[in-house]
Amino acid sequence: MKFLPKALQSLVHELARLPGVGERTALRFAVSLLKGGEHRVKTLQAALSSLQTDVSSCPECGFWMEEMRCPVCNDHQRTMQRLCVVRDCPDVLALEKFRSQGWKYHVLGGLLSPLAGVGPDKLNLPALHKRLQAGGVQEMILALDATVEGDATAFYLKDLCKKHFPTVSLTRMALGLPAGSSVEYLDPSTLESALQHRTPLE
Amino acid sequence: MKFLPKALQSLVHELARLPGVGERTALRFAVSLLKGGEHRVKTLQAALSSLQTDVSSCPECGFWMEEMRCPVCNDHQRTMQRLCVVRDCPDVLALEKFRSQGWKYHVLGGLLSPLAGVGPDKLNLPALHKRLQAGGVQEMILALDATVEGDATAFYLKDLCKKHFPTVSLTRMALGLPAGSSVEYLDPSTLESALQHRTPLE
Repeated sequence: MKFLPKALQSLVHELARLPGVGERTALRFAVSLLKGGEHRVKTLQAALSSLQTDVSSCPECGFWMEEMRCPVCNDHQRTMQRLCVVRDCPDVLALEKFRSQGWKYHVLGGLLSPLAGVGPDKLNLPALHKRLQAGGVQEMILALDATVEGDATAFYLKDLCKKHFPTVSLTRMALGLPAGSSVEYLDPSTLESALQHRTPLE
Repeated sequence: MKFLPKALQSLVHELARLPGVGERTALRFAVSLLKGGEHRVKTLQAALSSLQTDVSSCPECGFWMEEMRCPVCNDHQRTMQRLCVVRDCPDVLALEKFRSQGWKYHVLGGLLSPLAGVGPDKLNLPALHKRLQAGGVQEMILALDATVEGDATAFYLKDLCKKHFPTVSLTRMALGLPAGSSVEYLDPSTLESALQHRTPLE
């Protein structure tokens, strides 16, 4: 952009790499930071610094860990009876937002996607294998996205369980109407799932 | 947020201060930065550092300046015959996006807003006074927002010019239909302005 100082240009370039942020929004962010003054920029920089040093992945479940302690694995209220498999760490936050589910999690770090070149070797599967092998898991709940990638991953895990852990029962989150939705505007695939898995009114 | 490592929490807090960014989007940004790895975070930090040191305000026009040179004031193709007054620096970028206008700019750094406590003393007015006093300005073009604050600022500048610089002719950007708009969906105030200032078809 003409007239844009180089320092702003490079900040805009970096901010535009954030998900869903275009050049216009990045410029808006950069201007807001410029106006926010030195203290605000320093605070943001400090937060960025500690991000890299303080956050790591739990070797057991793959969730975020700080100070070498994973808050989920260290929660002794939770048992391994039910193990909930999710795509990524924010999914755990979403599932635990309004109540503690009482189970443990396993974060895959992605979903199978042959088109994007994501095979089983890219997922956090060896640790899952180990956890299942250790025994104690009665139910494995797949809380995966309702997408082609989510389906592919669910089928892969189903095969894996059938082969190696036939005693573990495998479930997947229901497909159906999201709360507050109108039948009129929903896609045929959602409607079909919601009809197929209709529940008795008692 | 439960389970969110402190380092991520403070980054989310800082990112949520960006304009239009809520906690959810901030978390998305933070996760993207965490996944982006050390190099990406370092580059963003470097861009933030040079922002404070490299970008300053031109003492003459108030636009961004780097290396003590303002790209607009130093553009010798531009004369002071016409002086375009804008609210803020991004407005200059918007006006110069598709063609060089040939005039110089004056950045007010805000608009008058009694409700928000922004009086004439908060705007870059002394420098404007000085530039007008130096002479040579034939037309002052107000390229201010079509808002209550823009109107208030325009009226203030009109009074100022009448009193001190009666030879400067003052103009303001036309109010009317934005390109691509439908009459059906426009607000009455825009429609009224567009009708009132209708132009002859030749």
